[in-house]
Amino acid sequence: MHQFSCQRRVEFSDTDMGGIVHFARFFVFMETAEHEFIRALGSNVHREIDGKKIGWPRVAASCDYKAPARFGDLLDIHLKVVRKGVKSMTYGFDFRRGDTLIARGSLTAACCELDPETGMRAIPIPPVIADLLEEAPED
Amino acid sequence: MHQFSCQRRVEFSDTDMGGIVHFARFFVFMETAEHEFIRALGSNVHREIDGKKIGWPRVAASCDYKAPARFGDLLDIHLKVVRKGVKSMTYGFDFRRGDTLIARGSLTAACCELDPETGMRAIPIPPVIADLLEEAPED
Amino acid sequence: MHQFSCQRRVEFSDTDMGGIVHFARFFVFMETAEHEFIRALGSNVHREIDGKKIGWPRVAASCDYKAPARFGDLLDIHLKVVRKGVKSMTYGFDFRRGDTLIARGSLTAACCELDPETGMRAIPIPPVIADLLEEAPED
Amino acid sequence: MHQFSCQRRVEFSDTDMGGIVHFARFFVFMETAEHEFIRALGSNVHREIDGKKIGWPRVAASCDYKAPARFGDLLDIHLKVVRKGVKSMTYGFDFRRGDTLIARGSLTAACCELDPETGMRAIPIPPVIADLLEEAPED
Repeated sequence: MHQFSCQRRVEFSDTDMGGIVHFARFFVFMETAEHEFIRALGSNVHREIDGKKIGWPRVAASCDYKAPARFGDLLDIHLKVVRKGVKSMTYGFDFRRGDTLIARGSLTAACCELDPETGMRAIPIPPVIADLLEEAPED
Repeated sequence: MHQFSCQRRVEFSDTDMGGIVHFARFFVFMETAEHEFIRALGSNVHREIDGKKIGWPRVAASCDYKAPARFGDLLDIHLKVVRKGVKSMTYGFDFRRGDTLIARGSLTAACCELDPETGMRAIPIPPVIADLLEEAPED
Repeated sequence: MHQFSCQRRVEFSDTDMGGIVHFARFFVFMETAEHEFIRALGSNVHREIDGKKIGWPRVAASCDYKAPARFGDLLDIHLKVVRKGVKSMTYGFDFRRGDTLIARGSLTAACCELDPETGMRAIPIPPVIADLLEEAPED
Repeated sequence: MHQFSCQRRVEFSDTDMGGIVHFARFFVFMETAEHEFIRALGSNVHREIDGKKIGWPRVAASCDYKAPARFGDLLDIHLKVVRKGVKSMTYGFDFRRGDTLIARGSLTAACCELDPETGMRAIPIPPVIADLLEEAPED
């Protein structure tokens, strides 16, 4: 799978005193869309594979804001796999309300083995996950 | 002024189940550093100038994550003015714990007049604010 | 209407380094359930009535935590109207995962007229809203 | 020690579209004050004692809101130990801006041994921590 769509309604606590969605919330929205995508693939973000705990710490995140979103708005979120690397994934996200582009973001996550003693170590994405993911064709 | 430094201690609620600071929190950390910078200049982020309400909605935000930060860490945050435009400002941020670079981010905000009826409209940065801000010299 | 049920999946950013949902998040979950309830009644939390802006600032909030909730959990949230006052509403909330009671909370909100100049002033709940709300029978 | 005071400046992201601090944020403010208190005692919230990982999951939390707090406000937070139990602690919190009482809250946390396999188990507060804590005298 190389793309995925979901929706999210803006909550009161997503807003700030400017009356619009706080810009940092879009990163949470991206992450949750990413996790719904992984769940839709039949997998899990945090899981054990061959006795190793796998996690996806973030390497980079960015967002361009095009129009404000407000309390109660129902946002259409479109995720696509921008790049499938050996040890990392980059996702792109479009946020729309109807025809209006609200924001466009990107998230890069590294596949890591989590060890309580030694911390995190980047590893090749295990085939059981990698086989589910495809790069989206260029637009 | 073209640069500013402040500190921030990582709170428990900044962390996630991965045991590290949630990546979206760095955007809040950047924003608060920006606001402390504006306050250090003797101004305010949200203020009235000539009867107009001024705000700084975000146009773009990005962050690269270099090393995890954890509960209780005292982060040194260094802000510099990357670009002073006519209607917008771009700030760069370094997050360090001692000598360790934790993250490097960027925030671009547009100077806007806020009107309860018509919404937000980008305007040239009023001189009373613009005169306080300078671009940092290239490294 | 005097009760309402909805569901919410625990997001990664809801968790803390303890590996469970951060306790403050339950207050956001309550608020969003309250707003979905108001929406289900065909009304809106923030609206104008007779040219007045109406809002519901919180007077009191509490929560008892019975069992931890974790990333990916699907929580059943049950709201009931505990008390319908002249100027305020008190809601009770049960959070369950299957048969397990996770938390039980309460939220009291005052009906206020919001005036940009003078701030907030408690007012009797306008009939157009009050008529939609009923107290739940005692258990 | 049975009381502790600290300050906190309200950040932009603490606010909501009502123009005031979102009510759920006060629970984060309480928790951070609790942790600063523990740090002031020379201890740590999350630590190992005799090879056991100790944590303080929340049992109950409540807050009464007296007056709104706004962006930029400097809040005085006063913590006192309301109850020192065998396995739990209850803290009370007053939030003031100058002479104005903003909110009054309470937090009860259970001392737990955290086991990655079996989860959390309430234990008597280890003497090395308990000896640092005293109940505040009745007002």
